[in-house]
Amino acid sequence: MMYSDIPSAQTLVLYFKSKGVKHIVISPGSRNAPLTISFTKNPFFKCYSVVDERCAAFFALGMAQQLQEPVAVVCTSGSALLNYYPAVAEAFYSDIPLIVVSADRPGYRIDIGDGQTIRQENVLDRHIGYAANLKQDISHATEKVAAYGPNLLEESQEAVQAFNENEIGKALQTAFHEKAPVHINIPFEEPLYGRMESPSVTIGKSAISFPPPPEIQNWEELAKIWHESPRKMVLVGVNHPGTTDQTVMDLLAKDGNTLVFTETTSNLHHPDFFLSIDSIIAPIEKSTNVDELFKKLQPDLLVTFGGLIVSKKIKAFLRKYKPKHHWHIDEKKAYNTFYCLSEHIKTSPNEFFKVLGSSQDTVSEYKTYWEGVKTQYEEKRQAYLNQIPFSDFTVFDKIMESIPKGYQVHLANSSTVRYAQLFPMHESLKVFCNRGTSGIDGSSSTAVGASIHNPEPTLLITGDLSFFYDSNALWNNHIRPDFRIILINNGGGGIFRILPGKEDTVEFETFFETHHDLSAEHLANMYGFEYFKAENEMELIGNLQHLYDPSQKPRILEIFTPRDLNNKILLGYFDFIS
Amino acid sequence: MMYSDIPSAQTLVLYFKSKGVKHIVISPGSRNAPLTISFTKNPFFKCYSVVDERCAAFFALGMAQQLQEPVAVVCTSGSALLNYYPAVAEAFYSDIPLIVVSADRPGYRIDIGDGQTIRQENVLDRHIGYAANLKQDISHATEKVAAYGPNLLEESQEAVQAFNENEIGKALQTAFHEKAPVHINIPFEEPLYGRMESPSVTIGKSAISFPPPPEIQNWEELAKIWHESPRKMVLVGVNHPGTTDQTVMDLLAKDGNTLVFTETTSNLHHPDFFLSIDSIIAPIEKSTNVDELFKKLQPDLLVTFGGLIVSKKIKAFLRKYKPKHHWHIDEKKAYNTFYCLSEHIKTSPNEFFKVLGSSQDTVSEYKTYWEGVKTQYEEKRQAYLNQIPFSDFTVFDKIMESIPKGYQVHLANSSTVRYAQLFPMHESLKVFCNRGTSGIDGSSSTAVGASIHNPEPTLLITGDLSFFYDSNALWNNHIRPDFRIILINNGGGGIFRILPGKEDTVEFETFFETHHDLSAEHLANMYGFEYFKAENEMELIGNLQHLYDPSQKPRILEIFTPRDLNNKILLGYFDFIS
Repeated sequence: MMYSDIPSAQTLVLYFKSKGVKHIVISPGSRNAPLTISFTKNPFFKCYSVVDERCAAFFALGMAQQLQEPVAVVCTSGSALLNYYPAVAEAFYSDIPLIVVSADRPGYRIDIGDGQTIRQENVLDRHIGYAANLKQDISHATEKVAAYGPNLLEESQEAVQAFNENEIGKALQTAFHEKAPVHINIPFEEPLYGRMESPSVTIGKSAISFPPPPEIQNWEELAKIWHESPRKMVLVGVNHPGTTDQTVMDLLAKDGNTLVFTETTSNLHHPDFFLSIDSIIAPIEKSTNVDELFKKLQPDLLVTFGGLIVSKKIKAFLRKYKPKHHWHIDEKKAYNTFYCLSEHIKTSPNEFFKVLGSSQDTVSEYKTYWEGVKTQYEEKRQAYLNQIPFSDFTVFDKIMESIPKGYQVHLANSSTVRYAQLFPMHESLKVFCNRGTSGIDGSSSTAVGASIHNPEPTLLITGDLSFFYDSNALWNNHIRPDFRIILINNGGGGIFRILPGKEDTVEFETFFETHHDLSAEHLANMYGFEYFKAENEMELIGNLQHLYDPSQKPRILEIFTPRDLNNKILLGYFDFIS
Repeated sequence: MMYSDIPSAQTLVLYFKSKGVKHIVISPGSRNAPLTISFTKNPFFKCYSVVDERCAAFFALGMAQQLQEPVAVVCTSGSALLNYYPAVAEAFYSDIPLIVVSADRPGYRIDIGDGQTIRQENVLDRHIGYAANLKQDISHATEKVAAYGPNLLEESQEAVQAFNENEIGKALQTAFHEKAPVHINIPFEEPLYGRMESPSVTIGKSAISFPPPPEIQNWEELAKIWHESPRKMVLVGVNHPGTTDQTVMDLLAKDGNTLVFTETTSNLHHPDFFLSIDSIIAPIEKSTNVDELFKKLQPDLLVTFGGLIVSKKIKAFLRKYKPKHHWHIDEKKAYNTFYCLSEHIKTSPNEFFKVLGSSQDTVSEYKTYWEGVKTQYEEKRQAYLNQIPFSDFTVFDKIMESIPKGYQVHLANSSTVRYAQLFPMHESLKVFCNRGTSGIDGSSSTAVGASIHNPEPTLLITGDLSFFYDSNALWNNHIRPDFRIILINNGGGGIFRILPGKEDTVEFETFFETHHDLSAEHLANMYGFEYFKAENEMELIGNLQHLYDPSQKPRILEIFTPRDLNNKILLGYFDFIS
């Protein structure tokens, strides 16, 4: 056991240990040496080294997502910290407790022309749960403080220690209780490498508190609306697997006037639920009686839970055909996604639906009509699949069928998660996607982080732009041999060919699609992955049969699909089922 | 010629054109389609497509650094913008006019659960010259505005147009005049892909103004101090090649009581200048009469110009042995780097020194003594080189000798620029390094950007951590066939073996040095570079003879050096010359 001799570094480390923050992702640096020494020389902590801070933060985010507990990232001073920002924003909108710890120069070194020195305090403040700006220890560097920062000497070391401890406590309280990312900035004076065997500071024994959410006052009113609404829609966004009780799902499924719309990322499975939202809505958009059909689908009461919704179509529909009531169930926050939020119900969905119960046993016409539509498109999708050539669409179908039970599946943004929505996935699969900011910047790193402590193997399904963007994700010594990547390489941002701006011009190919001829094969060799590729259906089927077999090394399967065909086939699907 | 049909997109593009901002680096996205369409369909603009926004911003920064004019980066909404931040901070501290343009969702879409939507306004505000938060056009989306954002309707389109024009004008004024990075955030409503052949807006004819700096009031007082100080030191930081007149250099060189200390990045050459600062100061630190020698070196008057100083040793020396006066010459800013800044002289170094003139023709003992020390270490360096084995130290010597005249040379952070300081470089070479924040995050991308418009070829010299960190720099269709990379691969962060914390432990290798066995060969194959490698002196010499020959493809020379020997040899150098 070894500690830095700097009191604030000791305080932080002791605090983390006392609160059980044990996973620490460290990027190399000198200014953060007091932290690196204290974390890595203390067997309580499990430390991970990741050089690229952008990847490090997404890697930590993936771990925190799975462990459902705070995970820390630690970096040196300067622009290192700014590279964390994309993951911090994702954590902010996805309610993931990422603890950012940045080493800093003392205040009198900021903006005087020193290297690796920026304005770190509060720099993440637009997307952070709490920013703790610690103070420099007086005791550690009295001489220098006297020389350069005389004002600091007016404070006592005891006061600084108390302030720092209090700030760290607030940050951890926010991370644990609000599941928000937090930032702790610590200025360190040189010398940075001093160490001692026992800490010189002791910390207080404050505990994290989890105050219960306020009692719901209007249960009766809510129950009345719930039981009396003839057309109810439950729409579920990003939702951690296994969090919704089977009794609640059964209750919702058998409710005779409730449609439950799920997304791939909602991890909710029941044969009566509606899982491919766009397959319901796209045909309505294309029909001649749009208004009539949308009115037929419009609920009186919309109840939502979970995180952000992937389907743009359902958002557009509900914003135009607003329900009378929109309730969002979440202990922390409720977005007014459809501009008609009437109630933020601060409890868990399990609690809420169990108290309300099912409202109608006989099945309404609202439900039977749309169940009929669902059966129809499911049949048509199969018919369509039987007649189209090898393409993104057929590839997704084959991939989804191939995934072994129990796998953790990470979907990259943005085409991947949208395609995945069109196909059923086995209920044993646990599906994740960074939908907080929906960026392509850290999908691979997140998947690697999420795989580390998972009992089952992890599969990342990604497009080529996301994959190459985050290629440093593979520069990681912790990748498990059972980690699998399926890369659908359509030579650019295939999604742009589906969006309305598509053109057959050089400008389109260069600046929207950003066409390229890259292959992952070189990266696979570089980072010690086994590499397989498929350019047609036969190769795909052959490779999928063996991809998941136990192996000494992680594996990448790269599937090359025809970039000028994919969009036609996807758009053709919506025509076909209409 | 084609324009988006959205007024604010037209305004921005017309403004850029009228002010001569013509280099536009675009990352793919849909929200920024109005800008991408308008820029790429207008032959005035030279557009570049770079997918990874972190690289895109450093690439643009490199171009702006060379062109000495504003260059724009354009991205879609969401975390894309945050990936620009490392380069923005570098631009902020290096006075480079990077114009960040981020497409945004309309205000009523923020924080309501939409994808790729974050709090973009002012998000870079701690390191930006000006943040222009444009308003959404009313005319373009009246219906939606009425539905979701009724408050907006209180403004007229004319008022919005005037506001936006004014804000864009302020941002460009700041970029041009203050050479600072600026941020323009533009909310766009769907539909995003509408276009028209002529713009529907006209813009005013305001010009960028360049107010002259205030007159210096105390010339006489300054001249008196300048001429009467018996010991003067001129210390030059990052400085653009060719900006200091030869007459000024001659004047300073022949001044009998002035020592001119230059850094590699100062691009200032004269046989009488002192160019390897650490080779002067390290032996003093090691001597038995430190205090006496430092007092011998301590100037009465310190005059600095240029950007940030690389040498930590001179900073430590001057902070302890403070001069009576410290003047910094720069039209824009003066950092109090040594905690004794007495005068910020707002003019150019050329102007300043010409007015003052040289103060003493006879050479003082101050100068002769230190010139003697200089001659001594130069001889000793050569003797040392003749007796040591192949290592980072010998490699740098050979590289520096090999670079063809006139080349542009980019040094990566951090070991590379520090090693380079120890060796002379030919005066025809133009040397650059990102010393604003001194990060390793964008050295390669900056070099690629800087090479684009340079009349001569460009050489990037980099260490392995910087190189692999920014490997996406090579994912760029604009890399010239004469672009050269020399990668000194010592299997990790060699600098950590030099810093005081060095240990022979697994923790040290993993979390400080971050040892790896990666090679650039796979990346070279992936991105179409010719690849050469050297593992000993003979291979190095052989490769250097042909590296710079004209070629169809850009080239990488990877040099593997012994990681457990490099630090001993560097530290041994300072012992040897002492």
